[in-house]
Amino acid sequence: MPLHFLNTQDWSRPDLDALLDDARHFKQSKLGDQLRGKSVALLFFNPSMRTRTSFELGTFQLGGHAVVLQPGKDAWPIEFDVGTVMDGEAEEHIAEVARVLSRYADIIGVRAFPKFVDWSVDRQDRVLNAIATYADVPVINMETITHPCQELAHIMALQEHFGTTDLRGKKYVLTWTYHPKPLNTAVANSALTIATRMGMDVTLLCPTPEYILDERYMGWAAQNVAEHGGSLQVSHDIDSAYAGADIVYAKSWGALPYFGNWGPELPIREQHKHFMVDERKMSLTNDGVFSHCLPLRRNVKASDAVMDSPRCIAINEAENRLHVQKAIMARVVR
Amino acid sequence: MPLHFLNTQDWSRPDLDALLDDARHFKQSKLGDQLRGKSVALLFFNPSMRTRTSFELGTFQLGGHAVVLQPGKDAWPIEFDVGTVMDGEAEEHIAEVARVLSRYADIIGVRAFPKFVDWSVDRQDRVLNAIATYADVPVINMETITHPCQELAHIMALQEHFGTTDLRGKKYVLTWTYHPKPLNTAVANSALTIATRMGMDVTLLCPTPEYILDERYMGWAAQNVAEHGGSLQVSHDIDSAYAGADIVYAKSWGALPYFGNWGPELPIREQHKHFMVDERKMSLTNDGVFSHCLPLRRNVKASDAVMDSPRCIAINEAENRLHVQKAIMARVVR
Amino acid sequence: MPLHFLNTQDWSRPDLDALLDDARHFKQSKLGDQLRGKSVALLFFNPSMRTRTSFELGTFQLGGHAVVLQPGKDAWPIEFDVGTVMDGEAEEHIAEVARVLSRYADIIGVRAFPKFVDWSVDRQDRVLNAIATYADVPVINMETITHPCQELAHIMALQEHFGTTDLRGKKYVLTWTYHPKPLNTAVANSALTIATRMGMDVTLLCPTPEYILDERYMGWAAQNVAEHGGSLQVSHDIDSAYAGADIVYAKSWGALPYFGNWGPELPIREQHKHFMVDERKMSLTNDGVFSHCLPLRRNVKASDAVMDSPRCIAINEAENRLHVQKAIMARVVR
Repeated sequence: MPLHFLNTQDWSRPDLDALLDDARHFKQSKLGDQLRGKSVALLFFNPSMRTRTSFELGTFQLGGHAVVLQPGKDAWPIEFDVGTVMDGEAEEHIAEVARVLSRYADIIGVRAFPKFVDWSVDRQDRVLNAIATYADVPVINMETITHPCQELAHIMALQEHFGTTDLRGKKYVLTWTYHPKPLNTAVANSALTIATRMGMDVTLLCPTPEYILDERYMGWAAQNVAEHGGSLQVSHDIDSAYAGADIVYAKSWGALPYFGNWGPELPIREQHKHFMVDERKMSLTNDGVFSHCLPLRRNVKASDAVMDSPRCIAINEAENRLHVQKAIMARVVR
Repeated sequence: MPLHFLNTQDWSRPDLDALLDDARHFKQSKLGDQLRGKSVALLFFNPSMRTRTSFELGTFQLGGHAVVLQPGKDAWPIEFDVGTVMDGEAEEHIAEVARVLSRYADIIGVRAFPKFVDWSVDRQDRVLNAIATYADVPVINMETITHPCQELAHIMALQEHFGTTDLRGKKYVLTWTYHPKPLNTAVANSALTIATRMGMDVTLLCPTPEYILDERYMGWAAQNVAEHGGSLQVSHDIDSAYAGADIVYAKSWGALPYFGNWGPELPIREQHKHFMVDERKMSLTNDGVFSHCLPLRRNVKASDAVMDSPRCIAINEAENRLHVQKAIMARVVR
Repeated sequence: MPLHFLNTQDWSRPDLDALLDDARHFKQSKLGDQLRGKSVALLFFNPSMRTRTSFELGTFQLGGHAVVLQPGKDAWPIEFDVGTVMDGEAEEHIAEVARVLSRYADIIGVRAFPKFVDWSVDRQDRVLNAIATYADVPVINMETITHPCQELAHIMALQEHFGTTDLRGKKYVLTWTYHPKPLNTAVANSALTIATRMGMDVTLLCPTPEYILDERYMGWAAQNVAEHGGSLQVSHDIDSAYAGADIVYAKSWGALPYFGNWGPELPIREQHKHFMVDERKMSLTNDGVFSHCLPLRRNVKASDAVMDSPRCIAINEAENRLHVQKAIMARVVR
């Protein structure tokens, strides 16, 4: 079976640490030949800017070429279920898509967001898993219901900020913030997963218990705490959560119980606009560093002052996407 | 005049055989410098996945770069008629498009499907022919009302399957299948053309005489039989057509008499859903091999069992698109 | 501050002349390594064919790779104002877009047309200027409210036609022509700017005083006449304007006073369809040469006879886009 990169939780800590080391190497030395003559197929079921740019340029910098495909937009809609009589919209089954792309490309990247209608379906991550099942080449998760590339870029930026690869003992706050739409939980799931994996003391700060993340990711976090030390707590109180924090990571997401029936969730979200990261909250921290996966709505998720502060490392984290993805691609084709 | 690749029928058998030989070479040896520093402009008037990926990556593997253009989508709509007062939607005439692209690129690829309104217009293949007329560089047909790249990929897959380049004497069935929409006849025209060109015994199996292909392609097929041996017959009887077949190639298409007035054609199509390729029909063949150009709707055009059988070579045929197109590009710029 | 290429007027004449010399070099010698391993981000807020193809292929020919991004289409909509509470459509602020792209790419190209609603806003060229403000790498104007790359391609084509780099004393007519829609003044602004910069005797021919260009560009033109010789006049009389012209350059544009209220402008435009460039008008010139930036509606802006005449150099001008842009890119990363 090819070496997929679907979730960090599937990879050992030493293997993740080696990826981060490789990423640091690529940050120093941009060009390489690890993908010389090789091809990468990037399947975007949802739009992207950073992900597409960083994968496409990273592939180029290692001597390869990435082709960007947007099914349903500049290619056909695709069927994912097995055994279906395909008399609807889909012109092609993922089995053929994955098998054919495996003949053309050496790596397949997949971005596929949830449909936001039924979380019990979305949580199966069917598009990603179907492609990984049928593909004969490594598959990389470019964000589905988790975002493992972002995880590594985030950790790398924190390691750079603190000047050490050992983040144990840091107080890490993952804070929910308001957004006019109910967003994907992917980056929240990922932050929770990787922050606990690194042995940090993690607080999940969110408006109500309904915003707690899916049990799979809460479970991974608990397992990580057991294995790597640190701690995990859930809080709905802003000030005590921020108090003494070393790291504040913000993300907005829709509450899982309201998937498919978002109407009653909107007023809850709107009552918590004050979760926006601002200077007052940051002043409660231990001279804490702020980051976000981007894109970020200024003065909605974080204030201009926070974003433009020298303690905002979101741009560094975004840059690191390039480096960690080169490390991942170079690793999976090795 | 530049060496265009518009239809296999314009090329001699020895030249086609040489392309197939080159494709086999590229299948063994992926990288080359036949297009080093050269540029390919791929004009997609209709969406694509395999074609775009295989042309883009094939160009890269030979040292060149392909630019993908989608007029009317991420570029301007284009005028094809001569002498028109261009006060409608089109912002640019194909004369300028083809001449300018000829200054930028060394090869122009064109995908342009019929409009399905008036076959007497569509059969002129005006977009392709207009570009070939005005271009100063070789033009490659990436599927219009024929699909010559698919033809070579198909033949190459059959030659691999049978372990010989000589396909004479093989019983070849091109079977119509159901699809919810009336589709392009391009691949059917192409299969008929190349199967007879290879001297096979060809049966065109379709629901009614209305599904017989355009006289140009029926004529090419008859001419090919006269020149290369083999035979051509039309059948509307499934079991006798499949009996003893070595090769079953499936495709759906709309009946030409209904172009522009598809209403009455739909019930005919729907009465022939049983043309789907399934295990029972394949059991009538001489241990026959199955293929399809893809995309394919599973359990509509062919059953899961047929698609997942080791005697389905559709994925090999799709892979061969890459190899034959590299051979074609390397040849036309030589 | 990085070396941006936003307007020719920001660059000295010797620097522009050097770019034209470099472009002539690239026309002779296609491949180079000036961008080896480097990346270019091309941001298209509006569609394009020539610009995208020439930038993408030019980057490749110099050893680099261009990534094409279309915000709001295959990426997020973007906010440009400062201090906004981003609770509308935009998912990301240009500050983050420009800063992140500066980490990924060595050059950023920007195409952003006016909104055609309020010229007092459009004339600020906010998208381009915002990106140039926040970017840490050189920004190239790929057409906003001016089109400086086209300017250089145009001048290069004229220099080739006349066999000299000294265009002083040439009679240059920039003529408005009809188009069914009110178009961008960018190329008109640019033609006026560069023609006066080259010291030519320039006539701006347009239907009424309302079609005179923005005072910024009229001012640049007047300043150029003062510094480089030549002359500038405005005319509404076709025959006297064409009389003795060495160069006729055509463009359609909407009249600035009607921005945001185009209704009353349409009948004026429609009364001046006879501004189309045709053989009779060209016969009044001094064996004049004709050009246009393309795309061009045949028999609306210029007749078939003019377009197909050997004295039409629009295709040469289009080709030169490739060469001048390579010169600009190679210069700004130096």
